[in-house]
This record gives sequence, C-alpha cells and structure tokens, in this order.
Amino acid sequence: MFVIQSRDKETRARTGSLKTPHGEIPTPIFIPVGTAGTVKGIMQKDLQEDINAKIILGNTYHLYLRPGIDVLKAAGGLHRFMSWERPILTDSGGYQIFSLTGNRKLTNDGAIFRSHIDGSKHVFTPENVIDIQRIIGADIMMAFDECTPFPCDYRYAKKSVGLTHHWLDRAVERFHETDPLWISEQFLFPIVQGSTFDDLRKISAEKAASMEMAGNAIGGLSVGEPAEEMYRIIEIVNEILPSDKPRYLMGVGTPVNILESIERGIDMFDCVLPTRNGRNGMLFTNEGTINIRNKKWINDFSPLDPDGPSSVSLNYSKAYLRHLVISGEILGAQIASIHNLAFYLKLVGEARKKIEEGNFKRWKDSMTKKLSERL
Amino acid sequence: MFVIQSRDKETRARTGSLKTPHGEIPTPIFIPVGTAGTVKGIMQKDLQEDINAKIILGNTYHLYLRPGIDVLKAAGGLHRFMSWERPILTDSGGYQIFSLTGNRKLTNDGAIFRSHIDGSKHVFTPENVIDIQRIIGADIMMAFDECTPFPCDYRYAKKSVGLTHHWLDRAVERFHETDPLWISEQFLFPIVQGSTFDDLRKISAEKAASMEMAGNAIGGLSVGEPAEEMYRIIEIVNEILPSDKPRYLMGVGTPVNILESIERGIDMFDCVLPTRNGRNGMLFTNEGTINIRNKKWINDFSPLDPDGPSSVSLNYSKAYLRHLVISGEILGAQIASIHNLAFYLKLVGEARKKIEEGNFKRWKDSMTKKLSERL
Repeated sequence: MFVIQSRDKETRARTGSLKTPHGEIPTPIFIPVGTAGTVKGIMQKDLQEDINAKIILGNTYHLYLRPGIDVLKAAGGLHRFMSWERPILTDSGGYQIFSLTGNRKLTNDGAIFRSHIDGSKHVFTPENVIDIQRIIGADIMMAFDECTPFPCDYRYAKKSVGLTHHWLDRAVERFHETDPLWISEQFLFPIVQGSTFDDLRKISAEKAASMEMAGNAIGGLSVGEPAEEMYRIIEIVNEILPSDKPRYLMGVGTPVNILESIERGIDMFDCVLPTRNGRNGMLFTNEGTINIRNKKWINDFSPLDPDGPSSVSLNYSKAYLRHLVISGEILGAQIASIHNLAFYLKLVGEARKKIEEGNFKRWKDSMTKKLSERL
Repeated sequence: MFVIQSRDKETRARTGSLKTPHGEIPTPIFIPVGTAGTVKGIMQKDLQEDINAKIILGNTYHLYLRPGIDVLKAAGGLHRFMSWERPILTDSGGYQIFSLTGNRKLTNDGAIFRSHIDGSKHVFTPENVIDIQRIIGADIMMAFDECTPFPCDYRYAKKSVGLTHHWLDRAVERFHETDPLWISEQFLFPIVQGSTFDDLRKISAEKAASMEMAGNAIGGLSVGEPAEEMYRIIEIVNEILPSDKPRYLMGVGTPVNILESIERGIDMFDCVLPTRNGRNGMLFTNEGTINIRNKKWINDFSPLDPDGPSSVSLNYSKAYLRHLVISGEILGAQIASIHNLAFYLKLVGEARKKIEEGNFKRWKDSMTKKLSERL
C-alpha cells in the first residue's frame, strides 16, 4: 500500500505513494482539517479542484458528538455523508480529550469526558474508538492515545506512555477482530508519544513499530515546545519507525515546520493553521506571511499571490481581501482559507518534486528563509 | 437599452432584455444582494456559474463606509475591486438611512447620519449619492430617496414624497451634468415612494415617469404592510410607469411575492431573503420551504432539492446540511445561500419561459400554491 518512490541523497526526505480504497496519495502530503465533516468555509469541489487536496482529516471526537454515530451509520459513512470521494483520515480523539482539561478523566480503561457542546457524559475506549472509526469509514484510522501537555514532568510522561501503549495493544486487537463496514480496507496507525523525553520517545517508537501496522504517527508535538525540540524528537523517532512505511506528524505546523520535518523523513502532515490563521487574515506565500488587516494593503490591487497556488490567489486582490476580512465578511474567510490550503498543498508538491530532482536541500534552505519573512 | 420581447395575454407580465455596459439582462430577473462588495458567503465564480446571476446589487451606504470611496476610486470601480464582470446595480442608500432610526436627520438638503460601524458623522445629498455611484461604477444607479416606514401617517407620507421628488430633480440634474468614470453609460432610476396611499403613489409614479430615465423603481414596499396592499400599490404605480421601460421593485420578496409582482408587470427584484434565510437554515424549493434545522431531516440523505437549481442542491443531502447549520459551520450558510439564490434565479427564468409560451397565469397559480407549503 505504501511505496517509496525516491530518496533524497543529502537528507532523510523521501517521496512515496500511499494507496487507499479512495485513491492514491502522493507523499509528502498535507491533509486539510475537516473537523466536523467540513473543511471550514470550503466547498468540497473547491477542495478537490482548486486546492487539489488528496486526502482530508475528520476529528473522531467532533464527528462522534455531531452528527453522531447513528447518523453516520445511516449515511453509510462519512464519505457519503459529506459527499467526498477522496481518502479521509480520522484522528483518535486523544488530542481533543486532552484539550478538555477539567472535563475529562483518564482511567486504565479509557477516557470519561463531557461534551463541549452540551456537557453530556461520554466514554472513549481504545475499542470503541476503533468501532467509531469503522463507522466513519476513514481510510486511515488512529489508535486512541493520551496526548501529554508541554511541559510535562518525566514521571507523568512515562506513566502516560505506558497507558498509550496499553491502549494501543487493545486498539490493535480490536482492529484485527473487526472489519471495515463500507470499504475494502482501513489502515490503523499507532501514535508515538513520550513528550520531549528521548528515552520515552524511543520506547514509544519501538512499541509503535512492533505493531506492524500500515503506517505510524507521531503525536504530542507542536503543543508548545520549541521547534528545535520537536525536530530533535522527530529525528530520534524516525530512526526507529520503519523506513518503508508512511510517517505522519500530527498537527504540524507552519510551512517551515513542514519543510524541516520532510527533511527528517516525515511523509504526512495535518494542521489547522492554514484555515484558522486564514480566517484571521493571515496569508502564507512563497515570499513570507501577509497580515491582510495591515493598512499597507488598503490600495494594493495586485493579486493575493502572483504565484497563484489557487484561482482565488490570482482572481482577488489584497485590497479586496483586506476589505472583506475587516468587514467580517464570510467570503474573506473562504478566500484566505482556500489560498492558504492551496499554498500548503503546492508547497508539499514542490518538496516532492525537489526530492525527485535531487535538489531538495538547497531549495528547502532558501525557502525556509523566505517563508519566515513578514511582508 | 430595454426591449420588451413578449407580453402575456392574460396578465401584465412581460419579458424583456436590458442592455448594460456589462452585459444583457433578461427580464424578469432577480438580483442577488451583494451588500459590501460580496454576496455573503458566495464566491464570484459560483455566483456566475452555479447560480447564474446576471446582475448583482451593491449597497451605496455600505460601500461608501467600507471600503470607502477613495479605495473604490483607486480600484477603478466596484467591478474591478470585487472581480465581477457582469452588471451591478446600486441602491440609493435611502433604505439604509431609513433603518438608522435615531442616528439620522433629514433636511431639505439631504441626510445627516452616523455610521453604524464607528458612529462617525456623514452627509448624503442627492448630488453626492450620484457622485458616489459614479465612482462605484454601477450599471444602474438609484436616485436618493426617503423610504417611509409602515404604518405612516398621510401627512408625513405626503411631505416625504415631496422631499423625495425635490431630491429626484437634483439627482437627475447631477446625473446630466456628470459622466461615467469607468464605463460608457450608467442608467439612473427614480424611485417611486408614497407609502400605501394611492394618490401619493400616483403622483410619485407620474413624477418618476416624467424624468424620462432608462427605468423606474418602486421603493417603500415590503416594509411591513400586508402583501395585498403591496400588490394594489404595484398595480396603481404600474398603470403609470412607462410600459416600455424596466420596472424594478426594490427589496421584494418571497417567491410568491415575486410571481405576483411579475404578473403585475414588474421586471426586476432584489431581496436579502434567499441569503439571510438560507444562513438560518431555510431553503426554498418548488414544493415549498424547508426548515433544515427540523429533526425530521436528521436521517434524510436525499439531495437538498432533486429539482437541482444548483450543483449544491444535488450534491449535498438534507441530513448533511442540517448537521452543518446546527453545528454553526460556515459551509452550511454557503450551501443554503447558493441553493436559495439559484432557486430564485431559476424561478424568474421559469416565469420568463412561461410568459413566452403564453401559459404564465396557469403556471403561476399552481406554483404559488406549492411555494406556500412548509415541508
């Protein structure tokens, strides 16, 4: 299902193709976040045609609460429910539960939590999180994990990794006992945890690798630790995670984070940054980031981004987008989100091309400089 | 510029074509409202391709405040600013000023008002409202008027009509003294006022007709009066407004209002109903209106509207839209707005076809029954 297509000679970067029931995914790839069955503000057709998304992410926690598992089951899975025919990856719910501080309790068995919507009580276990993802019908599922905060004391982190590994065994068991409901095959990725502690990360990476799943994920990063810490952990973990399987870095990150992580052998990324920051008027471009609210754009009628990752980048001007964002118009969020996601997809596509051409490292070094600029 | 193409034998309904610098508009037509340079939540390309909008409306009041006249002038007009190549009609600002109760003062000279955004003080006069619309570059401009509330006592309504007519003379004078900035020609439509008083409406219609402009508008309706009052006023006014010029009923209305008004000789409509109600989860269909929040749609995976006025009507299900609207997802507003506007455009297109075929009356009678249903 995963084939490495080329390897960079100077770095750990590689290109590949991940075959899923809903289509092939070229890697490295960025996965737009479609929290509750919608990538916020973006029509599925634009996601497919203008942004060129190859796969999107759904949040198990959000989908479980709304529309709920009964509806998703009656619909025949999330793909049909949301009219999306390309692959979907679902996260484990671990990160959302971690964010519900004060409204959740972890036990050996699982997590008891209260809905952020109506306060109702629910339980996630490694087993029912697999069952839920079977109903959702994601091409790629995640094992239920505990995401630790940053900073995190060593004792807690160690105990937490133990819990995540216990849950992982149970998740894999349930995975093997059950079958997909709507498609021929679903992959399950374990999630490596261990905070910023090298030894815990090593143990966790070895545990994940030992499960012999179709791919592996790295969680618990980009939660507040310095970027250099994150890169170091990625290097340690990627030494251990099998090289012939896709590696997915969860919830990361800025364009620079993504290039640095590709260099270290990561294949898959997701992040809310392009859409969330887009809604606030921040645009990513090859020349750096733009705060479109800035007065300097008031009479700038040039295209949002002449490099044109999407049609909106060329069709709309900075002055127009500034007006929309300042006026609180929905269209501002739509345009910025489409541009930013298309930029991310173009960036990973470029990285792929540079790796194939054998000049990734030089390109990456020049790009990370430019991407850090503020225009 | 306006050519009548066919007249219904049983009613006052007619079809025509209005030629503007940005293209021909088939009538009867519905004009989506693009308040501040955007039809809320809808990309220009979807407006053009999926909704098939032939012309959109901009609000002079809103555009004057934001982005402001300096920006619109620097942009070369609203068309360029918002990347919209089809015709634009701008209203006079009269209705918005009327809505600023307590924050505006009318004098013989014009209106002094406070911005709803920052409380800053501004003046609209018949002259500067023409100047502003010259800068906006609307294909069709409106003369500054006073919109009276409902109910309105006769004395006030009479005085108000006098003021609107005084302003109309000055607007027309300014119109003749000035030239378009960006296009070959701009039309100016007078607005007939007079509340629900037959004699005032007659006087106002005669005044409007006497200006010999390219078309005429009827304002001050759909402000709370019963629909039957509105239809009666339309009949009275349309007896007087020249039959060979387009008649534009401002701010109206429901699908039934529109069919009833077409029957009475109206050619053009605008209204926020399809977008505003869409954002709240109300859908218009040929079989009646749908409140998508209703629990009955929770497991209804059939298309929003099998009659398919737009691609979203066929591609998305009722259950999915219900989920989006209930979850407060932007995409819900987008889908419902596109569907509703496409429905309105299809409805006036159907009316046009029926008038041409000579069976408008029967069709309209059966449609108004169905359109009044609640599904």
